[in-house]
Amino acid sequence: MVRYKATISYDGSGFVGFQRQSHGRTVQEELEKTLTKLNSGQAVTVHGAGRTDSGVHAYGQVVHFDLPQLRDLEKIRFGLDTQSPDDMAVLQVEQVADNFHARYHKHHKTYEFLVDIGRPKNPMLRHYATHFPYEIDVSLIELAIKDLVGTHDFTGFTASGTSVDNKVRTISQASVRLDKSRHLLIFTFTGNGFLYKQVRNMVGTLLKIGNARFPVGQVKEILKQKNRQLAGPTAAPNGLYLKEIIYED
Amino acid sequence: MVRYKATISYDGSGFVGFQRQSHGRTVQEELEKTLTKLNSGQAVTVHGAGRTDSGVHAYGQVVHFDLPQLRDLEKIRFGLDTQSPDDMAVLQVEQVADNFHARYHKHHKTYEFLVDIGRPKNPMLRHYATHFPYEIDVSLIELAIKDLVGTHDFTGFTASGTSVDNKVRTISQASVRLDKSRHLLIFTFTGNGFLYKQVRNMVGTLLKIGNARFPVGQVKEILKQKNRQLAGPTAAPNGLYLKEIIYED
Repeated sequence: MVRYKATISYDGSGFVGFQRQSHGRTVQEELEKTLTKLNSGQAVTVHGAGRTDSGVHAYGQVVHFDLPQLRDLEKIRFGLDTQSPDDMAVLQVEQVADNFHARYHKHHKTYEFLVDIGRPKNPMLRHYATHFPYEIDVSLIELAIKDLVGTHDFTGFTASGTSVDNKVRTISQASVRLDKSRHLLIFTFTGNGFLYKQVRNMVGTLLKIGNARFPVGQVKEILKQKNRQLAGPTAAPNGLYLKEIIYED
Repeated sequence: MVRYKATISYDGSGFVGFQRQSHGRTVQEELEKTLTKLNSGQAVTVHGAGRTDSGVHAYGQVVHFDLPQLRDLEKIRFGLDTQSPDDMAVLQVEQVADNFHARYHKHHKTYEFLVDIGRPKNPMLRHYATHFPYEIDVSLIELAIKDLVGTHDFTGFTASGTSVDNKVRTISQASVRLDKSRHLLIFTFTGNGFLYKQVRNMVGTLLKIGNARFPVGQVKEILKQKNRQLAGPTAAPNGLYLKEIIYED
């Protein structure tokens, strides 16, 4: 048995999410179908690092899977890439230790969130960025986003009723930049783990701050009070990208 | 009767082209439907500057149409924009002279062509750039593209059997640049008019030059010999954008 790690990208628009479900097309299912074909019909199970939601995209999702024998890595990558559907691509395949686990092995994830601030919206980006057609003062967001960096209890930024017990996470980097020519506001967050809908709730809150409907201090207040009611709406999934996953050692 | 000029953008993926046809969804038809609604059910005809093909996108298509009365321009723009389907947007509506014609009034058009040179392809760009997974030397393209600038008979770059008699056009600007972070090769062409499939044939030829399968002098040779057989394949429509139209006076 040989364990492989693969880095993949996909357009989330046509999937109900990463994880296999009883209804709807998923990334996991498509990968397993192709791998099973490459494995002479023997079933292969894929484990993903992050369960992206319906509509969420990835440039650097990581998965692991086992095959009975060691094969040429570029041949597996090429086979998986070319036999996968058009809305997926396989960037890299590596051999890893037998105890490597895409989800449980310690790692840092980077998410990107794209906001189309053009008026009117860019039709080419309607599945790839969230449209925000209101006034926005980026300097307000720059001030507030700093308060997210560090180790905090992110209860106020997760979906209420989340089953995870420990809601303490560390965000090592959080930034926002304006791409003027493309009318895009680009948020980037790196951390050791993110709670369910956390990134989308942080972005929804930061946009309200940029629009001056929340004070700059709102992020601090939400972290302190651990109250989801104080945060902004959940930003739409179409702007979210799982950008990169870096594993420790 | 008041004549209006509108600047619109659209994602060409879901259209069989700009111009109304007996089968399939077109940009013209969608605009006419919305305008007719805004005109209390009285039919409105839309005239476009350029008839983009199936799959070709626009950031700056221009159309004109007539309405019985003068109305608030921003109200028309907003009404058209919000009542149009999601894959279109209306950027601007202006009042113009009664003899203005989007197609026949003298103008310069700028087209952009996006090539995804990433390996593997970017799934998010599969409808918005043409994938070219081969070796490319941009400096070869930079040399050859200069030969397109000027007034030439572009017979060798149009679809054979084109009905237009005069195939002499002037290209005032032609350039290529590499967007490294997005793995994109971006071609830009400005001219006083382009023949059927001319931009896509020029790009198909330049890509073959960049890939060293044609010599740098091939563009000059095609212009001289006026022979479509000497040019490269027609590049796919999904990379083409009608970017801007500037009218004289």
